[in-house]
Amino acid sequence: MTTVNLKHLAKELGLAVSTVSRALRDSYDIGDDTKKKVMALAHKLNYEPNPYASSLRKHKSKTIAVIVPEIANNFFSLAINGIEDVAQEKGYHVLIYLTHENYAKEQSITRYLQSGRVDGVLMSVSNETNDIQHIHALKQKNIPIVFFDRVCDNVDTTKVTTDDFESAFKGTEHLIEQGCKNIAFFSVPSFVSIGNKRMLGYEEALKMHKLKVNPNYVVYDTNNAEENLKQVKRVLSGKKRPDGVFASVEKLAITTYHACNELGIQIPKDIKVISFSNLNTASLLNPSLTTITQPAYDIGKRAATILFRSLDKKNATIMNEKVTIAATLIPRDSTRQ
Amino acid sequence: MTTVNLKHLAKELGLAVSTVSRALRDSYDIGDDTKKKVMALAHKLNYEPNPYASSLRKHKSKTIAVIVPEIANNFFSLAINGIEDVAQEKGYHVLIYLTHENYAKEQSITRYLQSGRVDGVLMSVSNETNDIQHIHALKQKNIPIVFFDRVCDNVDTTKVTTDDFESAFKGTEHLIEQGCKNIAFFSVPSFVSIGNKRMLGYEEALKMHKLKVNPNYVVYDTNNAEENLKQVKRVLSGKKRPDGVFASVEKLAITTYHACNELGIQIPKDIKVISFSNLNTASLLNPSLTTITQPAYDIGKRAATILFRSLDKKNATIMNEKVTIAATLIPRDSTRQ
Repeated sequence: MTTVNLKHLAKELGLAVSTVSRALRDSYDIGDDTKKKVMALAHKLNYEPNPYASSLRKHKSKTIAVIVPEIANNFFSLAINGIEDVAQEKGYHVLIYLTHENYAKEQSITRYLQSGRVDGVLMSVSNETNDIQHIHALKQKNIPIVFFDRVCDNVDTTKVTTDDFESAFKGTEHLIEQGCKNIAFFSVPSFVSIGNKRMLGYEEALKMHKLKVNPNYVVYDTNNAEENLKQVKRVLSGKKRPDGVFASVEKLAITTYHACNELGIQIPKDIKVISFSNLNTASLLNPSLTTITQPAYDIGKRAATILFRSLDKKNATIMNEKVTIAATLIPRDSTRQ
Repeated sequence: MTTVNLKHLAKELGLAVSTVSRALRDSYDIGDDTKKKVMALAHKLNYEPNPYASSLRKHKSKTIAVIVPEIANNFFSLAINGIEDVAQEKGYHVLIYLTHENYAKEQSITRYLQSGRVDGVLMSVSNETNDIQHIHALKQKNIPIVFFDRVCDNVDTTKVTTDDFESAFKGTEHLIEQGCKNIAFFSVPSFVSIGNKRMLGYEEALKMHKLKVNPNYVVYDTNNAEENLKQVKRVLSGKKRPDGVFASVEKLAITTYHACNELGIQIPKDIKVISFSNLNTASLLNPSLTTITQPAYDIGKRAATILFRSLDKKNATIMNEKVTIAATLIPRDSTRQ
């Protein structure tokens, strides 16, 4: 089947190509009858405007990109739902790009997007992102970016997150109230925004309660499930076993459950566990997992709303500000006394 | 910052625009020294080829689309990992589109892709997709499609799936061997390929063992979590309560666990549960969930490999065939006698 283009439509209707083009763009100088005829034939012949040519003219792709580290994580899939609901309302398409927590891949994606394939970007950086040159390059091309969850504090734009410090503080305090004195911290590296803020909240709670911060109790995600399990087992089978675990990311809470099963450690009797998590099976686990549940859908929705506000008004700048939406601590059996 | 284009580069170097263009394309008729000079300046000035103009010439976007119903499901996130690993090797970008199990959204995405934004499509259809006109429209534009998991049998192309019929047969037989006589079936609608094949496998196993198929025991996913819970609770609190549940999709197994908790029904004592699932917490649930685990990563990888084979050879047609990769039954506590 040959592709139907403007010429075909014009010939079939006995009109000038420019008339057909303007009719399809709903131009004021074309009569309603002509518009109807053109639209009807375009529809009948399954005519699609050439996106490249049309984008060259309008400089609008009606598309936004969402760059996230992974999707096997319930936080990101819920946040994407929030983003898509806003985009759908605005008539935009959403392209999802995964970095798989890989910095080189994140660089490659941002380089690809520099050429104007999308009108704006919503982004949560990878575990490995310790430098922001690639993000500056994107900004210099006048492509607006809004960060959510894992943000770059040094980039001037809006960052939408949960109250990472306060929630980590409260979560650690919850473990202390439940009787824990030696609390391990399993997290993403501390140069990642959430890693840093959650660690500060954890440390502050320990200090407030006159408990020592023990560097031997800290495990950082290695992006390798087997290596993570090894590291967690090392901490849990050490001389002075912790009696509490604060997992700052869901997958390390799951790793902790697996490690405890393998080592015959009972949760919550021997060790209590709390985790930042949007896991939909948290209440069904054995034992059910105490979580700090982020408003993932709302975070995605808010970030998208801010991006579209700038896309709607041409050249509107995005404020350099922080938007914080509080998380909720849901106590379950994994921290029961 | 103004965008650097070919003209800027040419002026700066005192060369013709066509020379710069050919140097950047590594053309045989340009000397190595000139190429080096052009490349160095392009790199220094952060030059990016205009993707639209360049795509118009080459008719290659070096991009494929993956259309899936959802990502909050471990099967799809693992399959996407398999797809991305192949695409990365081939130097392609992967755009992920979510239909959210909505037919209108799936239509809108395929219409958007008809204009040549991507070179090929990997697709798993939504729960609502009961008609294939939108897929034919895509095929007519010569955009190759390979289906995985949820396929359209009537479209001539390769379909990569697991052994849905056999696995459903074995899973149902497993429940029967564990003592179940009244087995409920919770699934996606039967016009969806996997819904149909898994239902046939379930029914065949019942017949083989001289058990009756009871239409009151069947619940179809409504794409609404609350409604699903209501339906499942209705079946589990009916006069003749089933003693086994075969969930053909993961989320309905999770719904079953929640329903049993609410109704005070004990798994596996009162009712046994098996599910198609790639849930990474299956072994940590209370009780641990017996699963039919699909080779999700391999299914994605195989589908992508077949698509790229056709993209590598211009105009190579994709065979109209089925590729089936077997799933694995992993017995756990939810079906224990």
